Formats: sequence, structure tokens, C-alpha cells
Amino acid sequence: MSKRLLAEFLGTFWLVFGGCGAAVLAAAFPDLGIGFVGVALAFGLTVLTMAFAVGGISGGHFNPAVSVGMAVAGRFDAKDLVPYVVVQLIGAVVASTLLYLIVSGKADFADIGSFATNGYGGASPGQYGLGSALIIEFVLTFMFLMIILGSTHGRVPAGFAPIAIGLGLTLIHLISIPVTNTSVNPARSTGPALFVGGVALQQLWLFWVAPIAGAAVAGLVHKALLEKD
Amino acid sequence: MSKRLLAEFLGTFWLVFGGCGAAVLAAAFPDLGIGFVGVALAFGLTVLTMAFAVGGISGGHFNPAVSVGMAVAGRFDAKDLVPYVVVQLIGAVVASTLLYLIVSGKADFADIGSFATNGYGGASPGQYGLGSALIIEFVLTFMFLMIILGSTHGRVPAGFAPIAIGLGLTLIHLISIPVTNTSVNPARSTGPALFVGGVALQQLWLFWVAPIAGAAVAGLVHKALLEKD
Amino acid sequence: MSKRLLAEFLGTFWLVFGGCGAAVLAAAFPDLGIGFVGVALAFGLTVLTMAFAVGGISGGHFNPAVSVGMAVAGRFDAKDLVPYVVVQLIGAVVASTLLYLIVSGKADFADIGSFATNGYGGASPGQYGLGSALIIEFVLTFMFLMIILGSTHGRVPAGFAPIAIGLGLTLIHLISIPVTNTSVNPARSTGPALFVGGVALQQLWLFWVAPIAGAAVAGLVHKALLEKD
Amino acid sequence: MSKRLLAEFLGTFWLVFGGCGAAVLAAAFPDLGIGFVGVALAFGLTVLTMAFAVGGISGGHFNPAVSVGMAVAGRFDAKDLVPYVVVQLIGAVVASTLLYLIVSGKADFADIGSFATNGYGGASPGQYGLGSALIIEFVLTFMFLMIILGSTHGRVPAGFAPIAIGLGLTLIHLISIPVTNTSVNPARSTGPALFVGGVALQQLWLFWVAPIAGAAVAGLVHKALLEKD
Repeated sequence: MSKRLLAEFLGTFWLVFGGCGAAVLAAAFPDLGIGFVGVALAFGLTVLTMAFAVGGISGGHFNPAVSVGMAVAGRFDAKDLVPYVVVQLIGAVVASTLLYLIVSGKADFADIGSFATNGYGGASPGQYGLGSALIIEFVLTFMFLMIILGSTHGRVPAGFAPIAIGLGLTLIHLISIPVTNTSVNPARSTGPALFVGGVALQQLWLFWVAPIAGAAVAGLVHKALLEKD
Repeated sequence: MSKRLLAEFLGTFWLVFGGCGAAVLAAAFPDLGIGFVGVALAFGLTVLTMAFAVGGISGGHFNPAVSVGMAVAGRFDAKDLVPYVVVQLIGAVVASTLLYLIVSGKADFADIGSFATNGYGGASPGQYGLGSALIIEFVLTFMFLMIILGSTHGRVPAGFAPIAIGLGLTLIHLISIPVTNTSVNPARSTGPALFVGGVALQQLWLFWVAPIAGAAVAGLVHKALLEKD
Repeated sequence: MSKRLLAEFLGTFWLVFGGCGAAVLAAAFPDLGIGFVGVALAFGLTVLTMAFAVGGISGGHFNPAVSVGMAVAGRFDAKDLVPYVVVQLIGAVVASTLLYLIVSGKADFADIGSFATNGYGGASPGQYGLGSALIIEFVLTFMFLMIILGSTHGRVPAGFAPIAIGLGLTLIHLISIPVTNTSVNPARSTGPALFVGGVALQQLWLFWVAPIAGAAVAGLVHKALLEKD
Repeated sequence: MSKRLLAEFLGTFWLVFGGCGAAVLAAAFPDLGIGFVGVALAFGLTVLTMAFAVGGISGGHFNPAVSVGMAVAGRFDAKDLVPYVVVQLIGAVVASTLLYLIVSGKADFADIGSFATNGYGGASPGQYGLGSALIIEFVLTFMFLMIILGSTHGRVPAGFAPIAIGLGLTLIHLISIPVTNTSVNPARSTGPALFVGGVALQQLWLFWVAPIAGAAVAGLVHKALLEKD
């Protein structure tokens, strides 16, 4: 079990360090910055790479919502849910801590700003309201789980799932960064929020509720309608 | 059959929600927006991800022109054509509806603008005329079907087709967004047009005629000349 | 044989229509244009997609320099070289013709400008001289053939070569568009040059000589040093 | 052995020529330049392509830190370490030389500027200090080796490792170009530094120490905790 938990720790660490790191360090660099396209690629590639590297050990969830959706679909033992979520959160916090150390070493560092936190209303990059945030986080996590459950099914040739899932996360970011800064992952939202506090913490509930609800419904739908050959 | 139709519904829903969603929400975001490159990636990745996830169930058409081309090539039973096209359209309309709900939750929302509709002449992003639109939609859908028919042929190792097809759709968008905003898919054009009305509906015929003609010719050419080993 | 030539025609048509099409239609679109990154992706994806679709039929050269390099390496029968190169050129010319028709349908069309032609000196996008052009076209085509010869070797698991080769062409464009607008393919250079004439035709020799020389040397090196297991 | 060393030479040559070449020639091209996203793609695709082409011959390290990490993990014979590192360095120097020749052929060439060297403090693109540089180079090389060691493990279906590793290097650049211009590879740092001298050479020690330390720790962790099935 400890080996599986180490894999989940490393994968979630990488997702937050790489995805939020790209957003914080490189997105808005003058003239040459990577923009939302680069951030979207970065988040997706964290999952693609670690799903190849350690997905065979732990299943490669790296996300509490994914663990819940897999459990609902009957593909993950519910008794492992709590330890998985705990190490995912630890991974996210360690990643945020290292990222903070790096950011604070910038010559003109003043404060960490939004630090890639998620939000709605005034905290949404494009000023989208609560309703928009709930819909998009629910729908995107629902579809993320449909991709995961479908591409890891025995029907698909082995080995391609990390590509489908990683690039699926890239796609999700291409759509939704302007709305909520894109979560679909409660651990990814929690790490940076702990460093920023304030509104980021007050709105954190949405990035637990909507992704987990979307993932759970996807688990039900997939199990009931699409699972069997 | 209902399982196959659910797969087509989900795939076409995802194509329109993800592709048009990226265009509407993220393409022109100030400074950090994803531009046409990001939109091209988004459309392609909707197909890549759902072709992996549910392509093994329904064939992964997600597009009336693809269904027609596959039928002409003898790879899809023509009696399934109408139910496939109907659920593809329903998927596109549901996606457009959800996208409308999200967009209208923006603080400064006034109207939906062009809402990622397709067009020519004054409705072309780069002001390309009817002739240019007909040629490019015909040629690109023809080539899209050549990619689909070739990469799903028994000659190619299993599993790679979703990569070829998805990234093929990305390529098609990299070429043609300035000309017609890129359709090659009548369902993708119809969903947003129903919300925008006016010119988008008046010009909708082209985005049924040209893609379906290109796909049908590709089906004939492939069957006659390239199919047999 | 006619089936193989049709495959080469389609592949080279797609390379020029898609790659040069993206450059001419979409690269410099105001604010949202795809830039050199998008053009690089487009060229690479034309090869990735058609190598999957018809590579199993013809070998998927789509490029006279590749055909020469494969022949030198002993992987392609030299007696097929002339017919291959002829249909590759026809594909490039047909693609350029269709692209011209589309471009000339733009409302404010005046002339086709550089039409994605290759050049050096005053015709280089970044004003690089003849020496720079010779070195970079030789080196990049040499490495392109090393990628092709290596990734299609029996040592590599089947199916991955189109990914390596297509993304290799993307990489080549990421490096060298500013220097020569990137050729590494005499057919790709010839198609647009016939429409533009003048300097594009006068400098065309370089985009036959340097790529073919680089490819031939790669064929020799690979055969002599790396081929055997 | 000479065949393996030729493969390492070619791979490291390509990594520096392609990655640094894209940075120097294309990143900041006016309006259409590829930016950090394009440079990140270029570095990653050099490794993806050559890992497919010659990875089966030499293991596809192309990086002294990778060779050290593989040796620590017990996957590479330590007695081959010195010849591997020597040819990697030669590859990097030859690539830098050719790149210098090309750059100096630009019409308005004055000097080579930073020539894609790595640095911290005043030499960091975003003015990040020594501490930030040490942390990020250590962490990213550690994770790079986790990706390499995991994705080349027998647990993962054959053939996918070059995709995971190449896109992993793209991801690493998406995160860290603003901090150190991204090394994670002492050979990549050394080639350009020899041409620039001054601060680039004075700071070169960090881009040997941090990547090798990160790689060695990854080798230990992977061997001790994740290797066995």
C-alpha cells in the first residue's frame, strides 16, 4: 500500500507543481509568456507523464474527484479512498510550498498574488459568476471521468490511456481557465488556496463539491450504461 | 443500439462544448488568450479523447458527414444513419445550451456575439467569399475522411486512430478558421447557429452540403482505390 | 503501383495544402493568428495524419528528399524514384492551385505575396544569408532522415513512426522558419514557387540541392553505422 | 560500443541544436515568434524524436544527469558513464558551433547575445536568485528521472516511453524557462556557455550540480521504493 500512496503523492505533487508552476512562473512573462495554451499543456502533461511513470502502480488518480468517480464506478476499492485523498492533499501542499519558495526568490518579489487559485465572481479570471462556475466544473469533471473510465476499459488497446487522459486535462483547461481558472481537482485547488487564504479559501467548497459531484455521476452513468461489452 | 447512440451523443456533445467553448470563452481573452492555435487544439482533443473513450462502442463519428462518408465507403450500415445523425444533432444542441448558460453568467454579458458559428462572406472571420468556403470545406472534409478511413483500416496497428483523427481535426482548424471558422461537421455548425439565428442560419446549408459532399467522395475514392490490401 | 502513387500524391498534396495553407491563411491573422508555432504544428500534422492513413501503402515519403534518402539507405527501390518524385510534384502543384483559388476569394485580395515560398538573403523571413540557409537545410534534412530511418526500423514497436516523423517535422519548423521559411522538401518548395516566380524560382535550386544532399548523407550514415542490430 | 556512442552524440547534438536553435532563432521573432511555448515544444520533440530513432541503441540518455541517474538506479553500467558523458558534451559543442555559424549569417548580426545559456540572478530571464535556481533544477531533474525510470519500466507497454519522456521535457520547460532558462542537462548548458563565456561560465557549476544531484536522488528513490513489481 505504501508504494501506491507514494505514487499518488508524486503524481499529485507533479500536477500542482507543474501546472500551477507554469501558471505562476511562465504564463504572463512579458512578450514570450506561455499564456493559457501553455498552462493547459502543462497541466495535461503532468498527468500524461506521471500516468505513464507510476499509473501502473496506483491507477494514477492524482485527484480526489477521480478517486471518488472510480470508486462509484466500481473500479476502485472504497476503503482506499481516505488514504488516497490524504496523500493527494499532502502532495498538493508540498508542491505549493516549494513553488512559494521559488517564487519568493524573484528579485522584485512582493506577494504571491492569486498564486493560481481557483475562483468565481470577482475571483474568476473572466468575472464569471457562481452559476457558470458550478456548471462548468460539474460538466468538465463529468467528462474527464468519462474519458478516464472509457480509455482505461479493456476495450481500448493498452498504453494509450495516459495520452487520452493527459490531453483531456489539457482540453479542459483550454476551455475553462477564463471561468474558474480550472479546477476539476479538489487537491489542486486546496494547495494554493492555503497559501493565499481569504476569498480563495471561502470559495474552496465549490471546487470540492462540483468536481466530486460530476465525477460521481460519471461513475454511475458509465457503470450503468457503457461499461459492459 | 442505445449504447451506441449514447456514445455518439456524448462525443458530439463534447466536440461542440469543448471546441466551441474554447473559442467562445478563451480564444480572445486579453493577453493570455488561446487564439486560433488553442481552439484548433481544443477541437482536435475533443475527438481524440472521446474516440479513445467511446470510439470502440459507436465507431466514434460525432459528425453527420463522417457517418455519411463511412456509409458510402461500406464501413457503416446505412440504416443506422438517421438515428446517428439525430443524436449527433441533439448532442450539439445540448452543448450549445449549456455553453449559453455559462457565457451568460459573465459579469459584463451583453449578447452571445457570433458564438463560434460558421460563415462566409461578411460572416467569414477573414472575409472569404462563398467560393473559398465551398472549396475549403469540401477539400478538408474529403481529407478528414481519408485520414479516418485510412487510420482505422486493418493495415494500421490498433489504437493509433484516435491520435491521427483528433490531431487531423486540429490541423484542419489550423488551416481554415480564418476562412469559415471551420466546420467540416454539420452538427457542430447547427448547434450554435440555432442560438444566433440570422446569417448563421441562412448560411447553414453550406456547412451541410460541402462537408457531406467531401465525405461522400472520399468514401467512394477510398473504397475504390485504397481499401484493399 | 498506381495505388502507391495515389498515396504519395495525396500525402504531398496534404503537406503543401495544409502546411502552406496554415502559413498563408492563418499565421498572421490579427490578434488570434497561429504564428510560427501553428504553422510548425500544421506541417507536422499533415505528415503524421497521412503517414497513419496511407503510409502503409507507399511508405509515406511525401518528399523527394525522403525518397532519395530511403533509396540510398537501401530501403526503397531506386527504380521507383522517378515516378514517386513526379507524383509528389503533381501533388504540390495541385495543392498550390487550390490554395491560390481560396486565397483569391478574400474580400481585400490584392496579390498572393510570398505565398509561403522558401528563400534566403532578402527572401529569408529573418534575413539570413546563403550560407546559413545551406547549413540549416542540410542539417535539418539529415536529421529528418535519421528520425525516419530510425523510427521505421524493426527495432521500434510498430505504429509509432508517424508520431516521431510528423512531430519531427514540427520541430524542424520550430527551429528554421525564420531562416528559410523551412523547406527540407523540394516538392513543398516548388509548388508555391511556380505561382510566385521571380526570386522564389531563382532560389529554388537550394531547396532541391541542400535537402537531397542532407538526406543522401543520412542514408549513407544510417546504413553504414546504425542499421544493423 | 561505438554505435551506442554515435547514438548518444546524435541525440545530444539534436537536443542542443533543436532546442537552443529554436530559442535563439525563433522565440522572439517579431509578431510571429514561437515564444516559450515553442521553445518548450522544441526541446521536448528533440528527445521524443531521437528516443524513437536511436533510443533502442543507446538507451537515449542525451544528458549526463540522465546517465548518472540511470547508473544510480542500476539500469546503466557505471563503467560506460565517462564515454557517454564525453560524447554528449561533444554533441553539445558541435551543435553550438553549427548554430553559431547560422546565427552569424543574419544580415544585422552583431553578437550572439545570451545564446540560450542558463543562469540565475541577473542572468535569469525573470531575475530569480540562486536559491530558486537550485530548488527548481533539482526538483525538475528529480521528476524527469522519475518519468524516465517509470516509463521505461517493464510495467509500461513498449513504445510509449519516448512520448512520456519527450513531452516531460516540454513540460519542464513550460514551468522553468523564466527561472533558469531551463537546464536539467549539464551538456545542454555547457555547449552554449563555451561560446558566451563570462557569467554563463561562472554559473555553469549550478547546472552540473543541481541536475546531477536531482537525478541521483531519483535513482535511489526509484530503485528503493518503486522498481519492483
